[in-house]
Amino acid sequence: MLAKLRLKKNEERRLKQGHLWIYSNEVDNNVSPLKSFAAGQQVIVEASNGKELGLAYVNPNTLICARMLSRSSKRELNLKFLKKRIQAAQDLRELHFEDPFYRLVFGESDGLPGLVIDRFGDVFSVQITTAGMEAVKADILQVLENLYQPQAIVLKNDNANRKLEGLELYEEVVAGELPEQILITENNTQFAIPVENGQKTGWFYDHRMARQRMQSLVKGKRVLDVFSYLGGWGLAAATAGAEEVACVDASELALDGVDYNAQLNGVSDKVMTIQGNAFDVLSALKTDGQKFDVVIVDPPAFIKRKKDFKNGFEAYRRINELAMRVLNKDGILISASCSHHLSRDNLLQAVQTAARHIDRNVQLFEQGHQGPDHPVHPAIAETEYIKTLFFKVSASW
Amino acid sequence: MLAKLRLKKNEERRLKQGHLWIYSNEVDNNVSPLKSFAAGQQVIVEASNGKELGLAYVNPNTLICARMLSRSSKRELNLKFLKKRIQAAQDLRELHFEDPFYRLVFGESDGLPGLVIDRFGDVFSVQITTAGMEAVKADILQVLENLYQPQAIVLKNDNANRKLEGLELYEEVVAGELPEQILITENNTQFAIPVENGQKTGWFYDHRMARQRMQSLVKGKRVLDVFSYLGGWGLAAATAGAEEVACVDASELALDGVDYNAQLNGVSDKVMTIQGNAFDVLSALKTDGQKFDVVIVDPPAFIKRKKDFKNGFEAYRRINELAMRVLNKDGILISASCSHHLSRDNLLQAVQTAARHIDRNVQLFEQGHQGPDHPVHPAIAETEYIKTLFFKVSASW
Repeated sequence: MLAKLRLKKNEERRLKQGHLWIYSNEVDNNVSPLKSFAAGQQVIVEASNGKELGLAYVNPNTLICARMLSRSSKRELNLKFLKKRIQAAQDLRELHFEDPFYRLVFGESDGLPGLVIDRFGDVFSVQITTAGMEAVKADILQVLENLYQPQAIVLKNDNANRKLEGLELYEEVVAGELPEQILITENNTQFAIPVENGQKTGWFYDHRMARQRMQSLVKGKRVLDVFSYLGGWGLAAATAGAEEVACVDASELALDGVDYNAQLNGVSDKVMTIQGNAFDVLSALKTDGQKFDVVIVDPPAFIKRKKDFKNGFEAYRRINELAMRVLNKDGILISASCSHHLSRDNLLQAVQTAARHIDRNVQLFEQGHQGPDHPVHPAIAETEYIKTLFFKVSASW
Repeated sequence: MLAKLRLKKNEERRLKQGHLWIYSNEVDNNVSPLKSFAAGQQVIVEASNGKELGLAYVNPNTLICARMLSRSSKRELNLKFLKKRIQAAQDLRELHFEDPFYRLVFGESDGLPGLVIDRFGDVFSVQITTAGMEAVKADILQVLENLYQPQAIVLKNDNANRKLEGLELYEEVVAGELPEQILITENNTQFAIPVENGQKTGWFYDHRMARQRMQSLVKGKRVLDVFSYLGGWGLAAATAGAEEVACVDASELALDGVDYNAQLNGVSDKVMTIQGNAFDVLSALKTDGQKFDVVIVDPPAFIKRKKDFKNGFEAYRRINELAMRVLNKDGILISASCSHHLSRDNLLQAVQTAARHIDRNVQLFEQGHQGPDHPVHPAIAETEYIKTLFFKVSASW
């Protein structure tokens, strides 16, 4: 019999709208003192009138002190539960992707708060960010073993949020053996990716649909991929028929990856890399009189916390202005942001402000979003973070 | 030498951000009395300090009393100007579409306020909604003649906004002869469309990209197209391999078009039509125990004016709830809105509210927008109106 977590009066409203989070100030500490629960413990959540709202797990030490797992109080987070949710997540992916390269589980959006699983064929990269999910780590791994007989499972438990949950940070191969090289296919392009020591889980699947759209626009064009990482955009452009591609990144390791992957796809002859700070590189290219037909700007999140907004917005404005300055007449700017705190409208405004500043006319002709392996939970705005805007940039009218 | 239209102090701000509209209360009537201008007259717009802001046309009788045409005061709205803008618009379309079936000009977004041109191969459907554009009607037709040697040009000047501009409402074939049948191709599907007597300009190209995305999701499925008009969604589903398609519309004429177009595409055996009010038909299907794998809800604008918001929102909520009720387990809901006043977030909320009401779990896995032949002007929010959300709908978790 699970313990009960009682909410204060009216604090069930957000949950009734479908949200999954409970904040610590919403708990009735007289009836169910938060301190009485262990980190990761499963509970039945009750409204103030005693009505059961469903299953959750608790962490008494975090601002989000509980996350809902089911609207049924009869469920429990266990092997069977995890298997059902992971299979449902797989069904959604298989609706869209023929090959087993995708984010298999995207936390709250797949009904599994605190769990992210990326799939690279037979290699699985698992990230656990909450004590509640950590408590069933063994079950998670067991489900993956049963469903997929993986070649390897890597726990990428190095996300800083774990500290808040009282969990240690580590990275570990917990099953099988990592192959020497992990190859994935995205948009008809192959990539060797560094699951160990790579950024985040090793690869960013979230732009796949927008990259596919980009591929239809680059034939015969000169393309610049700014913040390229391993060339997710740039190499997809090259394999789609771009005439010349330059990838810009601050990381030498990432650019080594670009070179390697260019070779893998037989496009080395048209792919070059430029190492350096993106702002500096774009300024230098401008000074040098270099021009491109398509410029892709896909920076890391400039706005990590709400209070970074002002500076972050200015950074988005500035990088897009620099990008427009190296565009040929009637060129295409593909401008992305993965900052949840920068809305689509904010990004649009950043680009428009930049365009007015240098007297350009921009037309927004396409919009991209995180792909279907990163579904959005309609009641949890935080599950949406990617936006990609496609502009035609002309001289001022 | 064009007359000057002087703005009041600080009223140039919106224009400097790229907007094209001037409201009548922003004009300095002491320096340049609005009443002194003729409807449709071209002017140079000046800031309060006399600085020239560019070329516009005026209508002294409308709330939006002037629309900017160029940031250069040296331009004039004439044959040459129109030709350049229309060609630029065509360039943007040709970047995306191989065949000549698209909205060629989308008003403000293409730098041609008050002008919409749809292209159906060699037939052009032209809609003029402002006195300023009406004044150069002959030039517009001349440019189309010169650039395309059209088989026919139809003036669809039946938009109610024309009344506000003091223009009469009419529809007229002004050049060539309309062929007996106008055929267009969209997403590998053929449609015979009624340019004369059809809705709006005869065809809604604006959903093409979202329909294309839909096509990848329907193979072998049972599909319901609610508010089908001529079957833009439903027939595209049928040609993409849907097993069975039902098209619902209130208009018998529209459904005759569906039947005809089904035959045209050789999919009559799997396409059926249901005439009636969409709300009623969905309720009846539910009562009848009918279920579908994919339901598309693409209603006419339920919110035409801001003050319709509350009732309109409720209509969106209700129609989406009805749609979810006839969905099979783990089915797909494709929910569109063309109401500018209903934001993406509003539509998302309408669907989520409906889902909670009938205890369904929804995941937003894809988002569509108006296609690249309906570009968005980043400074003019009104140029964006279409949003299409793709959901997986499951039993409550």
